Amino acid sequence: MYTPAIKFEEDTLQIIDQSLLPGKFKYISLSNLDDSITAIKELKVRGAPAIGIVAAYTMYLQAKQLIGKSSDIFIRELNIFSALLSEARPTAVNLAWAIKRIKLIYQKKSIESISNIVNQIKQEAIKIHEEDRIACEKMGENGLTVVPDPCTVLTHCNTGSLATGGWGTALGIIYAAKESGREVKVFVDETRPLGQGARLTFWELIQNNIPCTLITDSTAGSLMKSGKIDLVLFGADRIAENGDVANKIGSYSVAALAYLNKIPCYAVAPTSTFDLSIKTGKNIPIEKRSPQEILHIYGYNFNLPEVATVYNPAFDVTPGNYLTGIITEAGIINRPSKKTVAEIVIPFLKEKK
Amino acid sequence: MYTPAIKFEEDTLQIIDQSLLPGKFKYISLSNLDDSITAIKELKVRGAPAIGIVAAYTMYLQAKQLIGKSSDIFIRELNIFSALLSEARPTAVNLAWAIKRIKLIYQKKSIESISNIVNQIKQEAIKIHEEDRIACEKMGENGLTVVPDPCTVLTHCNTGSLATGGWGTALGIIYAAKESGREVKVFVDETRPLGQGARLTFWELIQNNIPCTLITDSTAGSLMKSGKIDLVLFGADRIAENGDVANKIGSYSVAALAYLNKIPCYAVAPTSTFDLSIKTGKNIPIEKRSPQEILHIYGYNFNLPEVATVYNPAFDVTPGNYLTGIITEAGIINRPSKKTVAEIVIPFLKEKK
Repeated sequence: MYTPAIKFEEDTLQIIDQSLLPGKFKYISLSNLDDSITAIKELKVRGAPAIGIVAAYTMYLQAKQLIGKSSDIFIRELNIFSALLSEARPTAVNLAWAIKRIKLIYQKKSIESISNIVNQIKQEAIKIHEEDRIACEKMGENGLTVVPDPCTVLTHCNTGSLATGGWGTALGIIYAAKESGREVKVFVDETRPLGQGARLTFWELIQNNIPCTLITDSTAGSLMKSGKIDLVLFGADRIAENGDVANKIGSYSVAALAYLNKIPCYAVAPTSTFDLSIKTGKNIPIEKRSPQEILHIYGYNFNLPEVATVYNPAFDVTPGNYLTGIITEAGIINRPSKKTVAEIVIPFLKEKK
Repeated sequence: MYTPAIKFEEDTLQIIDQSLLPGKFKYISLSNLDDSITAIKELKVRGAPAIGIVAAYTMYLQAKQLIGKSSDIFIRELNIFSALLSEARPTAVNLAWAIKRIKLIYQKKSIESISNIVNQIKQEAIKIHEEDRIACEKMGENGLTVVPDPCTVLTHCNTGSLATGGWGTALGIIYAAKESGREVKVFVDETRPLGQGARLTFWELIQNNIPCTLITDSTAGSLMKSGKIDLVLFGADRIAENGDVANKIGSYSVAALAYLNKIPCYAVAPTSTFDLSIKTGKNIPIEKRSPQEILHIYGYNFNLPEVATVYNPAFDVTPGNYLTGIITEAGIINRPSKKTVAEIVIPFLKEKK
């Protein structure tokens, strides 16, 4: 049903260059660390789960180049690569999470040969990818319980096959609803400044023949007020212990407006997006991006004077209590709080180990 | 202090072509009805008070060309021009309001010569312009009472000298605050899709050396939540009898988020923006604009298939009860409702007559 954002075949890592969509559909190869860091920073690949998967494969490709080196050099080099990759984007925890899984393999004191460890890294990267695909399916299944028939959904940013290793998080639920025969329509927030809604979600829904309507971010509120929206679904980049959700800038507004208009609103994310080491959303680092992302379409042909600045955070934080729930592959966390997050996430993670 | 959007000198009507800002600053002449309708439809001039003023001057320029015609032809032609001008944009009531004032002059049964009536139309147009300039000053004065010192204001769309016959409505209050020596900073909503905040308000504030920060529309909510905003001010295109305010798309969201975060939020508009013939915001016609306004920056190089549509309303309606007040030249309407609107607006309009 969906076009994979990430392909790993015959030791070759390829991604759809999402910065070219919708005008041009093209896979590009990522051959080394620099390629991947550039692709992540320039949002050629984005979406919390997707960048985690790319990071894992990239660690493998780099590790492979170190076969023949001593164990010390192998570990030292990979530690440097890990640090550089982790810094590519600060907010989505899946990036650090995936790298940590790879670290657990190469850092273990072992009598195994480097080439054996490299092979284990490869298997782990494939596993991270495959687990995400399955988690997406499971989120779709779990999410179906909150989708009425017919249903008009509002969504923000892109959370589909372009953002994950499967068919998506929030968008996965919409695909699941369609597969189950439900009548589903989607209002797509443009998602300024980079238009992941307009460029990616709208494009994905068109590819999948799902009725969709593009709106400016500012239109979402008045649609909710006028009763046109049954359900709000968006993704997450990092979820704190108490259920606070960092996600694409504007998600807080969407959730708050849904709350005010008594419309069910869910964040949808795999357990890999939870960062239980962080108590509340206040501690989540928020990436600030370039003024040019906002300005470049407006013809500012002069340098801004000192009185004028641009504030361009890529994410905001939605307090858990504004959400009806968080839909994960482990189940739905209703009324997110420290207690309800722990009840769903901790047993699942323990069982997985 | 401010650059006038509209100049009328020696029978020549000129406007700043706002569609070229900020890249190019240029006055263009509007010589006839077609020029003005195009300028209004293409937002070369916009802002509810400004388009009313342009309409009034345009009626004069057209009337002047009818000197020498019979009274019947004169009235019939001007009625046609009135209808065409009124239809240029449907939401802002100031357009119809200004045309109605001109109509009251040329439609009166009179023994006066056509050239006398034409001169009266000219005087009325100048009066509409001058009254708006004075109303802007008075709104600034009235609005000062709600501006703390220091103050960080959030604003949406453009409500300054580009939008009015004076220094502006919401932005006028900011100019008044600066003139009174208060320390004022402004967060400027980009205001998609046409970027009146990014292109016009940001530019105006830079011209006037007022500290300003451009944000995407989606960033406003999280700024409010994090306590960075002291006051929200925006304009209005039409205000119903019960205090419901039609304004640029996104104003509802801004007001609702201010309400939720307990931040004072005011619409600022002259009494000419009130349409007491309309009971509630539900009856205000909302202009829908072209999909291309949203799509054109995203490289859709294919025609959209049938499943995909774009919904691009130019305005939304904020229920009066989400507003702390409406600031007019007649005073501040606190907690807008049918009763409080009537208390301020009706005596003022009666006295003016």
